[in-house]
Amino acid sequence: MTGSDPKSAHIVSSYDEDLAALQARVAEMGGLAEAMLADAIEALRKRDVERCREVVARDKRLDELEAEIEARAIRIIALRAPVAFDLRLVVACMRMSSTLERVGDLAKNVAKRGIDLAAAGPLPMMGSIARMGEAARRQLSEALDAFVSRDSELALSVWRRDVEIDELYESLFREVVTYMMEDPRTITLGSHCMFIAKNLERVGDHATHVAELAYYVVEGEPLDGERPRGPASDAPTG
Amino acid sequence: MTGSDPKSAHIVSSYDEDLAALQARVAEMGGLAEAMLADAIEALRKRDVERCREVVARDKRLDELEAEIEARAIRIIALRAPVAFDLRLVVACMRMSSTLERVGDLAKNVAKRGIDLAAAGPLPMMGSIARMGEAARRQLSEALDAFVSRDSELALSVWRRDVEIDELYESLFREVVTYMMEDPRTITLGSHCMFIAKNLERVGDHATHVAELAYYVVEGEPLDGERPRGPASDAPTG
Repeated sequence: MTGSDPKSAHIVSSYDEDLAALQARVAEMGGLAEAMLADAIEALRKRDVERCREVVARDKRLDELEAEIEARAIRIIALRAPVAFDLRLVVACMRMSSTLERVGDLAKNVAKRGIDLAAAGPLPMMGSIARMGEAARRQLSEALDAFVSRDSELALSVWRRDVEIDELYESLFREVVTYMMEDPRTITLGSHCMFIAKNLERVGDHATHVAELAYYVVEGEPLDGERPRGPASDAPTG
Repeated sequence: MTGSDPKSAHIVSSYDEDLAALQARVAEMGGLAEAMLADAIEALRKRDVERCREVVARDKRLDELEAEIEARAIRIIALRAPVAFDLRLVVACMRMSSTLERVGDLAKNVAKRGIDLAAAGPLPMMGSIARMGEAARRQLSEALDAFVSRDSELALSVWRRDVEIDELYESLFREVVTYMMEDPRTITLGSHCMFIAKNLERVGDHATHVAELAYYVVEGEPLDGERPRGPASDAPTG
């Protein structure tokens, strides 16, 4: 680990307060994004239009937090010119806020589809979708833990596990294609399932990015090598 | 327009040089992202696997530029503590780099699908896909022009026009569903077309964001009101 000791006392106490407030906002944002994702999946499963709408409405708060975190980070950089560990931390908080805002957007999109699909009856493949949603939420949750507790080992383990979500996505993609082929009247519904699965796979990518940021803050260098990926297939990621 | 006059002379000339270098990198990145998008569509249309691979490889340069722009912006904020117009400009350059990196990712994903699909014969709906790709590229190009030339009127006009790409997306989505229903053997191919269309629609969203940043830098306030959107339908965006 390079840079200044993160535990060393700062001379100006309000600097520490500034850094603590910045990290507290990021932790708050992480908790909200994780809850939005879990609630979006649950509302989709229960075809609960009211709850879907409530998830959509909550995205505004994430946008506000992102703007606040950016403003706080820029203020700290301008006033304190942090270096080494502190600079990595402040920059990582900015990137975290942008990543978590994107997770919120994806959860919102799942909830929006939940509104459109509620009247269509139980969603096919809902079991697989819920499993994938829970896997993505858990990845995000552990990556956030790694960030907050400065645990680069945990970050590395989350980072390595993204391949599991990619595999769930591949499997769900095939399941949806089979379903649509058996009954072409289900193609519109099936295409919604595909986009929901893709959204959850992207949440997994963002969780991986949070793990990378957690690792980078603690270790002072990026995670090396190519991330393990799911099998090559006709359902490419991205 | 609020804040300091962007044309006023700075006392320390290297400050201007720092700002100019930052903006030059953003302009370079914008040009690369736009070219990647155009080439990805062209390579997809021609089923040119080599050219698809070449587009995929180019994404690395965008990642490098994003990192360089972030580092330059942070250095300027830490050393110069810019305010008003200059601060907006520096922050906007950071956001631009992150937005353009995402455009590069989307172009890369289109190119990757081009590699997977080349052997499958001519892509159905290729005409509509190419039209949508060209509309998205033009939006991005004009939004970048608005940013570079500090033209808030042009930014506003690009921002208002995003509804056209949403409409192209809706129309393409329906076209693909119809195609898949007529011949269920085309469902896997059709689902690739859907994801390509979704990627292009997201490029349109990013172009809109570039227009918002261009407006914000010049005017000192965000674009007001909700952006006009395409018709509500069973093909929600996001």
